Amino acid sequence: MFELKKTASSTKARLGLLKTDHGNIKTPIFMPVGTLASVKAVKQDELVKKVKAQIILANTYHLYLRPGCDIIEAAGGLHSFMSWDLPILTDSGGYQIFSLSDNRELKEKGAHFKSHLDGSKHLFTPENVVDIQRALGSDIMMALDECPPYPCSYEYAGESMKLTHRWEKRGREAFLNTEPKYRHKQVQFGIVQGGIFEDLRKESAKYVTDLDFEGIAIGGLSVGEPTELMYEMTDLNTDYLPKDKPRYLMGVGNPANLLHSIARGIDMFDCVMPTRNARNGQIFTRNGYINIMNAKWKNHNVPLDPDFPTDLCQKYKMSYIHHLFRNNEILGLELASLHNLTFYLWLMREVRNRIANDTFYSWYKDRAEIMDRKI
Amino acid sequence: MFELKKTASSTKARLGLLKTDHGNIKTPIFMPVGTLASVKAVKQDELVKKVKAQIILANTYHLYLRPGCDIIEAAGGLHSFMSWDLPILTDSGGYQIFSLSDNRELKEKGAHFKSHLDGSKHLFTPENVVDIQRALGSDIMMALDECPPYPCSYEYAGESMKLTHRWEKRGREAFLNTEPKYRHKQVQFGIVQGGIFEDLRKESAKYVTDLDFEGIAIGGLSVGEPTELMYEMTDLNTDYLPKDKPRYLMGVGNPANLLHSIARGIDMFDCVMPTRNARNGQIFTRNGYINIMNAKWKNHNVPLDPDFPTDLCQKYKMSYIHHLFRNNEILGLELASLHNLTFYLWLMREVRNRIANDTFYSWYKDRAEIMDRKI
Repeated sequence: MFELKKTASSTKARLGLLKTDHGNIKTPIFMPVGTLASVKAVKQDELVKKVKAQIILANTYHLYLRPGCDIIEAAGGLHSFMSWDLPILTDSGGYQIFSLSDNRELKEKGAHFKSHLDGSKHLFTPENVVDIQRALGSDIMMALDECPPYPCSYEYAGESMKLTHRWEKRGREAFLNTEPKYRHKQVQFGIVQGGIFEDLRKESAKYVTDLDFEGIAIGGLSVGEPTELMYEMTDLNTDYLPKDKPRYLMGVGNPANLLHSIARGIDMFDCVMPTRNARNGQIFTRNGYINIMNAKWKNHNVPLDPDFPTDLCQKYKMSYIHHLFRNNEILGLELASLHNLTFYLWLMREVRNRIANDTFYSWYKDRAEIMDRKI
Repeated sequence: MFELKKTASSTKARLGLLKTDHGNIKTPIFMPVGTLASVKAVKQDELVKKVKAQIILANTYHLYLRPGCDIIEAAGGLHSFMSWDLPILTDSGGYQIFSLSDNRELKEKGAHFKSHLDGSKHLFTPENVVDIQRALGSDIMMALDECPPYPCSYEYAGESMKLTHRWEKRGREAFLNTEPKYRHKQVQFGIVQGGIFEDLRKESAKYVTDLDFEGIAIGGLSVGEPTELMYEMTDLNTDYLPKDKPRYLMGVGNPANLLHSIARGIDMFDCVMPTRNARNGQIFTRNGYINIMNAKWKNHNVPLDPDFPTDLCQKYKMSYIHHLFRNNEILGLELASLHNLTFYLWLMREVRNRIANDTFYSWYKDRAEIMDRKI
């Protein structure tokens, strides 16, 4: 399902093609996050035509709680429920149990947790998250893992990793012993853990590789550790991952993070940042980011960037966008979300072009630094 | 600026063409409300291409307070500020002083009021609302009036009407003695008042007609009085208005209200209902309205109406729209707002076609009754 097309000469950046029954995905790629089966404030046809998204992510934990698998199954699966014909990746819920739920309790069998919505009790096991993702019908499902916090002790990280490994073995078996519910193929990705400890990260990469998932994610990063440490762990992990499988760095990140991680061999990303930050007025551009709420834009009566193909950049004056945000107008959220996602997907195309014509290495570090600056 | 094209045979319904420098408007017409220079949750290009809006309304009171006339003037006027090339009508602020502001005090000179935002003190006069609307640069501006509450005594209604008349006379003079600030023509509409009292309504219609505004609005209705009384006053007023001027019933209404008022000779409408109610989950259709929050839609796995050309009706399952609303997803607000406005503008086209081919009379009463039912 994955073709490695090219590896860059002076970095570990790769070009690939990920094939699914809902379409092929050119990597490196960023996946917009549609937590509750909607990429917030963006319409499905805009995601396809304007953002040029190739795949989106939806959250198993959230959809399991609302609207529930029965509703989505009755609608014919997640693609049909949300009228989305391109690929979907669903996570396993492991990260949300760690970050959102109350009173979680990890047992050998699985993770007991209380819903963050109503306190109701639930259990996710390596097996039932496969069943849930069969009901959702995502093209790519994730195995259940535990995501340890940062910082955590070597001992905790090691025990947690071993639990994740046992869960992933059971999850892989559950996947191999079940069939899709709909008329398209599903694949399963495993997740490497190990905190910020080199030997654990190596061990986990090898263990997860041996389970022969169709793709491998790097989990447990971007949870509060210094950025340099995240890059280091990523770099280390990709050295121990097979070349013929797609690599997905979960929950990362800002534009600079993406470039640095691609240079370290990552193919896939997801993050709420472009949409969440858009709703707070942060606009990403090729030359840095801006905060539209800043008074400097109040009387700025020209568009932001006539050369960038979004309505926010070309069509509207900055004074107007500022006014929309100052007054909580929904249109502001729409324009900024659409812009930031379009920017992220533009960045991935730019990266792919530069890997293809061997100009990625000479370009990415300076560009990452520029994009990391506030304008 | 107004051509009366046809009057229906068995009702007072009219076909007209209202000409402005930003384009011609076929009447009867509904004007989507863009209070703060944004029709809530709808993009400008969607208003043109999908809703097929011909003109929108913006609120002088709101724009005067936020972002302020200086900002809009620096941006080159309201059209330029909000990137909207079709006609705009602005109200005078009279209604918002009545409905929103604290501690208003009416004097002969004008209306003193405190901002509903920060309590700051302001004065609107017949003259300065002309100046403000010159700065906004709307194609159609409204004269300042007082909108009395319902119920109110005959005496209050009469005194209020007389004050409105004196203000309108001054407002008309201010309009005639000032020039547009931008390169397009502006016109001014007067407003008939008189509460629910027949003789006052007649007197006001005659008085306002004599001031020779380019169009005449009927104000002070849809403020809590019984619907039948609103129709009665409208019917009475249009009998005393000149045939060659457009007639605008302010702040009305639901689909049935529009049909009944068109039958009584009204050409123009505005109302927040299609967008505000959309945000609360009320969807208008040809066969009645629905509340998308209702549990009956939870598992309704087909689109609402494949024959009606909105994404809400054709593209998405009702179960999905229900899910979006249950979870406060912005996409739900977007789809419902876009649908309701598209429906309102479709209704106006349908009405115009039926007046043109003389099938309005036989159609409108039954259709109004059907559209007034909850599905």
